[in-house]
Amino acid sequence: MKIGILGYGNLGRGVECAVRQNPDVELSCVFTRRDPKDVKILTEGVSVYNVADIAAHKDDVDVLIICGGSATDLPKQTPEYAKLFNVIDSFDTHAKIPEHFANVDAAAKQSGHTALISAGWDPGMFSLNRLYANCILPEGSDYTFWGKGVSQGHSDAIRRIEGVKNAKQYTIPVPEALSSVRAGENPVLTTRQKHTRECFVVAEEGADKGRIEQEIKTMPNYFADYDTTVHFISEEELLRDHAGIPHGGFVFRTGVTGWEKEHKHVMEYSLKLDSNPEFTASVIVAYARAIARLNKENVTGCKTVFDIAPAYLSPLGGEELRKNLL
Amino acid sequence: MKIGILGYGNLGRGVECAVRQNPDVELSCVFTRRDPKDVKILTEGVSVYNVADIAAHKDDVDVLIICGGSATDLPKQTPEYAKLFNVIDSFDTHAKIPEHFANVDAAAKQSGHTALISAGWDPGMFSLNRLYANCILPEGSDYTFWGKGVSQGHSDAIRRIEGVKNAKQYTIPVPEALSSVRAGENPVLTTRQKHTRECFVVAEEGADKGRIEQEIKTMPNYFADYDTTVHFISEEELLRDHAGIPHGGFVFRTGVTGWEKEHKHVMEYSLKLDSNPEFTASVIVAYARAIARLNKENVTGCKTVFDIAPAYLSPLGGEELRKNLL
Repeated sequence: MKIGILGYGNLGRGVECAVRQNPDVELSCVFTRRDPKDVKILTEGVSVYNVADIAAHKDDVDVLIICGGSATDLPKQTPEYAKLFNVIDSFDTHAKIPEHFANVDAAAKQSGHTALISAGWDPGMFSLNRLYANCILPEGSDYTFWGKGVSQGHSDAIRRIEGVKNAKQYTIPVPEALSSVRAGENPVLTTRQKHTRECFVVAEEGADKGRIEQEIKTMPNYFADYDTTVHFISEEELLRDHAGIPHGGFVFRTGVTGWEKEHKHVMEYSLKLDSNPEFTASVIVAYARAIARLNKENVTGCKTVFDIAPAYLSPLGGEELRKNLL
Repeated sequence: MKIGILGYGNLGRGVECAVRQNPDVELSCVFTRRDPKDVKILTEGVSVYNVADIAAHKDDVDVLIICGGSATDLPKQTPEYAKLFNVIDSFDTHAKIPEHFANVDAAAKQSGHTALISAGWDPGMFSLNRLYANCILPEGSDYTFWGKGVSQGHSDAIRRIEGVKNAKQYTIPVPEALSSVRAGENPVLTTRQKHTRECFVVAEEGADKGRIEQEIKTMPNYFADYDTTVHFISEEELLRDHAGIPHGGFVFRTGVTGWEKEHKHVMEYSLKLDSNPEFTASVIVAYARAIARLNKENVTGCKTVFDIAPAYLSPLGGEELRKNLL
């Protein structure tokens, strides 16, 4: 299977690494909005092209992995390139999934391609666990916790404050909330009771740290509803101790069975990821395999992880899977 | 969707309870090898028939849930009844899955029915997690732990010892092994390092407890390779404190990503179940929904959880699922 990557940032680079771990998958080319001469990739012998020339490489790619941002890139790119390629993205603006799905579905159906949106871990693996668990335990409660991990959006929000040179924000589940859910106590939790936020901030010289801390802690939507800790550190410390992009989280469903609903059950799924973009890329590459197969079976239009039978993700055949993994 | 239950033991009763929690599913009838007059079920207005009359009720049932044992019942029953019904079972003899699959597949294909074998939590939900995680992290290690929970097979083995009146055996994961796997240490674990076994035994009056304990602890396959604890208790204590059938366990995959394999990831799935048969039954009923749908789409033959797109398990439509669970 030949993969094209559109957009060579953290996610695109993660896809490149994931491709190398899957012997049946090969990187065909990388497309960029930058001058291709300025983009140095890791894989030897693979060309980088400007995205303006993408149509010329239509036949070099079985699945195009679109590694743009959900805010402005993907809503345009995924429907547009579904006209030329089988495509997959990691669109993660939950509220706009129905609209994005409809746009990609229309484009893919018209051109006879297969598309999958919102691959990754949330949306993605977490969504799958919510779905399976809801089908198995129809009477119950769902809980999702994120972290400990870096939130890019919250880090960016801090960086926009006057006097802030650099910043990194960690989202952290509250241990007591996790324990209570895990014990099947079905707690009703406020935003503040579920997660705390920890910020590592590099202030510009002479900046008023008290004011910066106050602005962070009272920022609406981002921090005001959370217990937030702010640490001022040096740029060196930030680069040395907070260079990674770890993330992860927990999905729970707790529910009851029995004639009198007398039995409790706790289903828990968790991820602890050293690299958020590399793990996301690994999920995407597995689903790219499914998309290429479905297209060969003449299944077209837009799909999500809910529509893909798990066996389609694997390079192994049904017999081997049943023997070794069932 | 109309469900028939074949076999009214713990699992059949669990299916009956699960059906009541799914408004789109209805119990049509129960089949038994016993005299139907002796089988008292919970649902009002539903008939119990002898299995000899099952063919007469062919059209009353969309999916027949076969609740027999894996050792001798299911290898015969599932292929046999796949000739008359869409069928589903929870066959759990891992080593014999390929053979069972082939038999059921042939019968179902010939008669135009749809079948699913090995639904439950292991095989079942645990298998799914092994598959997804292996596809996402192709370079890594798998770990499965069972418990804390009751092993019926081990309890039965103790009951066969001379001088034992009754017994219950719990399989317990070793906490240090769990912690090491969870920390991404990739330990190599022996059988003894993964699980311990705890036995609650009611001895007959005058029986030699020392000899019974010795026989348990040295029993090949069942106990000899484990650290085993034996507690002698009264029949009253056994019935009061150990009447339940809890179970559960953990599936891990730990793996690496990155150009230099420099990033570690831990994926963990766990279940804590008050009632093993009721949870298994809940999984089966969700998959019965998928089987009925696939049959309407003229997809016939034998399937496993690997072949079923997750959306087929849900009573909700694609739009609703994408909006609320993705």
